[in-house]
Amino acid sequence: MKRQDLHAAWLPPAAFRSVGSRHTVVHGDGPLLDTVLAELREAAGRYGGTVRHGDGAEPVDLVLALSAVPAESGGTGDEGFVLARRDGVTTLLADAPAGLLHGLFHVVRLGEPAFTGERPAEHHRPALHRRIVDDWDNVDVHPVMGQVERGYAGGSIVWRDGALREDLSRVAGYARLLACCGINGLVVNNVNVHASEAHLLTDRLGEVAAVAGLLRPYGIRIHLSVNFASPVQLGGLPTADPLDERVREWWAHTTRGVYETIPDFGGYLVKADSEGQPGPFAYGRTHADGANMLADALAPFGGVVHWRAFVYNHRQDWRDRGTDRARAAYDHFVPLDGEFRDNAVLQVKHGPLDFQTREPVSPVITAMPRTRVAVELQATQEYTGQQRHVCYLAPMWRTVLGFRPWGEDRPDVAQVAAGGGLVGVSNVGDDPYWTGHPLAQANLYAFGRLAWDPTLDPAAILDEWIELTFRPDDTADPQTLRRTLHELMDGSWQTYEQYTAPLGVGFMVSPGSHYGPSVDGYEYSPWGTYHFADRDGIGVDRTRATGTGYTGQYPAPWSDIYESPDTCPDELLLFFHHVPYHHVLHSGRTVIQHIYDTHFEGARRTERMRELWRDLPAGLVDPALYARVSERLDEQVRSAHEWRDQINTYFLRKSGVPDAHGRRIY
Amino acid sequence: MKRQDLHAAWLPPAAFRSVGSRHTVVHGDGPLLDTVLAELREAAGRYGGTVRHGDGAEPVDLVLALSAVPAESGGTGDEGFVLARRDGVTTLLADAPAGLLHGLFHVVRLGEPAFTGERPAEHHRPALHRRIVDDWDNVDVHPVMGQVERGYAGGSIVWRDGALREDLSRVAGYARLLACCGINGLVVNNVNVHASEAHLLTDRLGEVAAVAGLLRPYGIRIHLSVNFASPVQLGGLPTADPLDERVREWWAHTTRGVYETIPDFGGYLVKADSEGQPGPFAYGRTHADGANMLADALAPFGGVVHWRAFVYNHRQDWRDRGTDRARAAYDHFVPLDGEFRDNAVLQVKHGPLDFQTREPVSPVITAMPRTRVAVELQATQEYTGQQRHVCYLAPMWRTVLGFRPWGEDRPDVAQVAAGGGLVGVSNVGDDPYWTGHPLAQANLYAFGRLAWDPTLDPAAILDEWIELTFRPDDTADPQTLRRTLHELMDGSWQTYEQYTAPLGVGFMVSPGSHYGPSVDGYEYSPWGTYHFADRDGIGVDRTRATGTGYTGQYPAPWSDIYESPDTCPDELLLFFHHVPYHHVLHSGRTVIQHIYDTHFEGARRTERMRELWRDLPAGLVDPALYARVSERLDEQVRSAHEWRDQINTYFLRKSGVPDAHGRRIY
Repeated sequence: MKRQDLHAAWLPPAAFRSVGSRHTVVHGDGPLLDTVLAELREAAGRYGGTVRHGDGAEPVDLVLALSAVPAESGGTGDEGFVLARRDGVTTLLADAPAGLLHGLFHVVRLGEPAFTGERPAEHHRPALHRRIVDDWDNVDVHPVMGQVERGYAGGSIVWRDGALREDLSRVAGYARLLACCGINGLVVNNVNVHASEAHLLTDRLGEVAAVAGLLRPYGIRIHLSVNFASPVQLGGLPTADPLDERVREWWAHTTRGVYETIPDFGGYLVKADSEGQPGPFAYGRTHADGANMLADALAPFGGVVHWRAFVYNHRQDWRDRGTDRARAAYDHFVPLDGEFRDNAVLQVKHGPLDFQTREPVSPVITAMPRTRVAVELQATQEYTGQQRHVCYLAPMWRTVLGFRPWGEDRPDVAQVAAGGGLVGVSNVGDDPYWTGHPLAQANLYAFGRLAWDPTLDPAAILDEWIELTFRPDDTADPQTLRRTLHELMDGSWQTYEQYTAPLGVGFMVSPGSHYGPSVDGYEYSPWGTYHFADRDGIGVDRTRATGTGYTGQYPAPWSDIYESPDTCPDELLLFFHHVPYHHVLHSGRTVIQHIYDTHFEGARRTERMRELWRDLPAGLVDPALYARVSERLDEQVRSAHEWRDQINTYFLRKSGVPDAHGRRIY
Repeated sequence: MKRQDLHAAWLPPAAFRSVGSRHTVVHGDGPLLDTVLAELREAAGRYGGTVRHGDGAEPVDLVLALSAVPAESGGTGDEGFVLARRDGVTTLLADAPAGLLHGLFHVVRLGEPAFTGERPAEHHRPALHRRIVDDWDNVDVHPVMGQVERGYAGGSIVWRDGALREDLSRVAGYARLLACCGINGLVVNNVNVHASEAHLLTDRLGEVAAVAGLLRPYGIRIHLSVNFASPVQLGGLPTADPLDERVREWWAHTTRGVYETIPDFGGYLVKADSEGQPGPFAYGRTHADGANMLADALAPFGGVVHWRAFVYNHRQDWRDRGTDRARAAYDHFVPLDGEFRDNAVLQVKHGPLDFQTREPVSPVITAMPRTRVAVELQATQEYTGQQRHVCYLAPMWRTVLGFRPWGEDRPDVAQVAAGGGLVGVSNVGDDPYWTGHPLAQANLYAFGRLAWDPTLDPAAILDEWIELTFRPDDTADPQTLRRTLHELMDGSWQTYEQYTAPLGVGFMVSPGSHYGPSVDGYEYSPWGTYHFADRDGIGVDRTRATGTGYTGQYPAPWSDIYESPDTCPDELLLFFHHVPYHHVLHSGRTVIQHIYDTHFEGARRTERMRELWRDLPAGLVDPALYARVSERLDEQVRSAHEWRDQINTYFLRKSGVPDAHGRRIY
């Protein structure tokens, strides 16, 4: 497949027009510099500029130079760069080749302003060193989960029906897109490592190497999800006990083999003792024992193990109101703080449950000061509309990353995550638009940008993405196009929250698929996901005073803020408290009226979104993309109304309280 | 696989001990007589008797003779027989070979009493001419439904992974078991005819013929489920319009081909315009048009088309309380009464919905006097415990067959069904015990026996089945074995009803699997299956006065009996009426207290069942079978308690009414 046959996403040729029309000189050598030169030359070929490698006398507009940035300015580190413009020349300097690559994409994002006026030196460095996407791709088509677990964009771009794809050009295109938004690592396979996938570590390592070869030119290291039981499954050992010398030796020599094949291999990702996956518990060992064994195997080569904290009892009894899944990761891992190796990263989902539309920040993030913690976000819209609904997630992520667990003037989540990194579960597949819903591309872009700079404003990221992707200035009506996309996307997460599970209660989705409403779908399940709605009230009492004690896992001030319904934020009220339907929110509305109001309002907003798209003048976007978005909006409107009606009917039947405004509830 | 490696079910060798120890003479010839002779010779070889074919002078105990039974006694018909015993000789006479086969199995059932004392001539004839089992076997493994749709006993005994099994010995054993309980027809494949299965009609007809060859020696004709769109799918025609001459000709010549290969082929079974299957609606034709087209193709060869009445809108909107799925079959088919050919049989599920634990009799059965109606029962326990629960269904079926739609002294359902037959969806697979739960064998046996004689008492059928299967008199404690099995099975349907959906409301099962409770699982679905429970009451108003008018589909007196909650039987109250939780039943209890009481009682009964089985002295049944039943009873106890707790908690949360006896509701 040729690059021009792939959807260009946020790197259409025209995004390089400003750069491509300039006279550029590049100083420095190396593989990443070759990538920079190739990008520049392709753009120059299209837009009339020139590119020279090394010294010369011609006048230039743009200089990219690999050269030690003066130490007094702090240097640029492995990936940073300095951008300046003086006397009509724009200069990009970096200590390391990756910095020039990121700098180039920064100049692309800037467009014409990068070549206008004067520009004092700006120092750019990523806030987080580890910026990784996790692909949940399977080698074999899983009978339930398919080729990509929780994938909503077609098949895997790497494997098809059990074999590596012959044409991996999508992977090359993906690497380029990821590099442009700042990603520097990719986990190539699903965290649930099934039988065939386990072999990627050994006899199928060549497939991983093939993908790694396509990522490398864009500064992205490959990582592999591995099965904790590999020494048994692959090595023929009788045990996978992390303290058994044979097991440690097996991991050591297997890891050595990986690095012999892939010298810049990033490391392992492990989901252990979770939802049926094997782990150290089987041998009476701790998760630190398990993680450290792999860390030791990786350490000689500079690799890192990412160890997921997503451990809980998924065979809970719904009758047991004392067990609280939200507590589980903290209870399992916090006692181990300080026991993990320096190259072991504990990878923690941003909330205590599982990527619900609204959750509090996981208290694990706050409670392991002597452990490298990475925060895991989910770009694939498992619980947020499955890329059939517009749901721009950057506002949610910004809320998480900017949360200050210890109160104002103390570190925020992004600062804590600087030790381990930011990880995003990817949302791409072999869909023509990469992500099913074309507007879902923005989530992947925003993830990368927030990993680079967690302080970015979601609307500003959307501006960047719109300018790159849709080139409004090349259309007849740039302002309408920009305004329409912002109106569709800016508030789409809040809209989605309005018409789905209310007030942080979560999990009112169809079991299994997680798409569409089922208020009681998980209410009597073994998954630990309950709302306890009865005729009088709803919500989960997680207080110290009368509930599961989960609020006690937070440091002050949030342990106290969440403890009382008087101070708990409305949007998380039902996550922390069981309250009567007539409980009055800070908004002044009762809980039951809030449910009705938000559901009517959320569904109405989806109608408005569809109208906005219908009103978009023809020709502003590609007709095929326009049609795809239209079709998805139809489904979003239908689904939002289904949510509205099921939720409202459920609560009307249960509470008996009529809508204060007399609207129709079935 | 040798016969002795198959579980013998109700035909263990010892069942033939009485016959096998006698001196027998057989008069008559033909294939079925060969089967009779082979059965007799095998038994005699084991138990020391003799078998002679044709005249001779030796003393005999048993004579089987194919000879015209005197017309003044009415003859025996195609399948009946006359049994008598005089002067120490037992005599079986029949007009036709099948009569002798059925007679032989009758003598086997009788055992020693068939050879004791005098026995005046008894005339046996089946009440229903057509006694058919439907196997829902797929050729290919269906991604959702597997090798057998709604099968709970392993794979198909005919196909595996898309191909005919090499070893079809199970089919031969199945035929023998079916013949013993009176079955004379078998539909070999699933009513949902997918792509590969469609080819059984043409290029894969040889597979059907292979099975037919194994059924034939036991007097069982094979039938085939066909896809209405076959002329398009297989014939390359642009249409399947039943009035199109090309289509009619395609079916005529295809059917001719079937009979050339299988001269005793029984006919077709069609599920059309139902749950996504194609049908005549696509061409603006009626179901009579569709059925008659196939009937015309089959008529020259004596074949019959079974046309299912299971037609309803499975994409209903739960918000629409006016549409009532229970009405659908009547509304579709009753206007067509009189339009069906004589060799077209309308196959009607016994209830208006779908094999729920408790439903009223389908009014379609009462409303088509000019149409051959067959009644369809379901031996496979889709909604009745999936062969993990003991649920002896004969009492339910007896209730259906003995129901008198026009009141006392008028015909019952069995008499109406005499025109079309009785059909049972089979419950067997390649499981070692045929049916998963060994005690579920009784359901298949009872189905056959009720099809032969619908007036049989379920307990008496169970007696027969126990004597044949378990040979209590060969054990150390016959009475304990008999009593235990009766106590486990006699009331097991009522027990199952007690701990599942209450008072006829149905469909509180897990969506998709139909196993285990999910009170709201189908409440907001498109399947037309709702209970409308709110904080005040529950049930579906199907009255003429205020509801969907469904009660008006019944003749008097039931149209009036069902219309009023004062006369509606308790067990169907919520099927016909929406009532408050405090509504008082004829039993004197309120609806809510009935729910609590029956759920506590039903779950308790399963504990008692398990105790009974635990208390069974060792050695009375085969240890492997004992272990299998024990394991299933553990699951039944677990599941019954899950049902009890989910149902009780759901209704306590909704109604707010505490249990009058203060028992624990979670």
